[in-house]
Amino acid sequence: MSSALLEQLIDALRVLPGVGQKSAQRMAYHLLERERAGGQRLAAALSEAIEKIGHCVRCRDFSESEVCPTCASAARDAHLLCAVESPADRLAIEQATGYRGLYFVLQGRLSPLDGIGPRELGLDSLVARLAEGEVQELIIATNPTVEGEATAHYLAQLARQHAVKPSRLAHGVPLGGELEYVDRGTLSHAFGSRTEV
Amino acid sequence: MSSALLEQLIDALRVLPGVGQKSAQRMAYHLLERERAGGQRLAAALSEAIEKIGHCVRCRDFSESEVCPTCASAARDAHLLCAVESPADRLAIEQATGYRGLYFVLQGRLSPLDGIGPRELGLDSLVARLAEGEVQELIIATNPTVEGEATAHYLAQLARQHAVKPSRLAHGVPLGGELEYVDRGTLSHAFGSRTEV
Repeated sequence: MSSALLEQLIDALRVLPGVGQKSAQRMAYHLLERERAGGQRLAAALSEAIEKIGHCVRCRDFSESEVCPTCASAARDAHLLCAVESPADRLAIEQATGYRGLYFVLQGRLSPLDGIGPRELGLDSLVARLAEGEVQELIIATNPTVEGEATAHYLAQLARQHAVKPSRLAHGVPLGGELEYVDRGTLSHAFGSRTEV
Repeated sequence: MSSALLEQLIDALRVLPGVGQKSAQRMAYHLLERERAGGQRLAAALSEAIEKIGHCVRCRDFSESEVCPTCASAARDAHLLCAVESPADRLAIEQATGYRGLYFVLQGRLSPLDGIGPRELGLDSLVARLAEGEVQELIIATNPTVEGEATAHYLAQLARQHAVKPSRLAHGVPLGGELEYVDRGTLSHAFGSRTEV
């Protein structure tokens, strides 16, 4: 390598998900050849974001203020609380649906083998929130994986203990999908849970 | 989006080649969730590299010093000069071959329609270099594209004008490839340029 700084940059770029040696090289050369201003902007944005973005004390989502804008907003329906595994899931729901309630971001899922229990997911603060009495429905939007389902089961129990109605995202055939290519488990579930039209 | 800084970071990440909105989101969340230290290292490395890396005055490759370590090295054979289009090509040759000569990085290829002529490729300094009389062979390693071939032709003429022997990378069937899948042009060329064994 012709420059130690270049080598250091390529190495540092590999911290990005899905970026190996070759992609990191390509990125470094691209930035140095054609995007120096953009690269400087990226360095500044990255440094500022890492320094200033923490977690909202209410919903545990990323936030630069103590309480995030969503939790602080008077326009959101505080009777509805939607529990998601990650900030990306929260964003996906916010962008795709017209949901106007609040969120709770678990930042993970129950996984005893990895040492992730109720405490790591901040469930004590969720319990305190449910106990406040304002939440009427807990929409459980964990991923449909084994660990996500276990987490959903646990959350539903918590909700019932506090007289809050738990609900779960509907499972079934994806819109625009072809039955032929839908996996067996999903098809069988969709068949069993068919609805009257 | 729950945070303006997060939005700004996602936007800034899109400057990377091949990174769209979704990948940028994934990268930002990954860095904030799991790699804050790595992210800070990346920000620092990026900012330092962009600030300090310029071009070597001899070979036009990226370099943090005026003359890059390769050009300054007494161990390299100054009779051989290899012209490549980009720093990435130079690196590929350096890593794959046992080449011990020097390089000249064009930082592009002749492309009159895009306003890239001999001056943009630094060919005046290449001519000065050839005129010094030390170089005996100019190895032309431009890409086998139309523009790369045109550039190679031009460089070969320059070399001959200064009594320097021009040479070109061999074309043919890639090692480990299957004849069945080699494109027609390459196969026809390889057939025509067959060598006695």
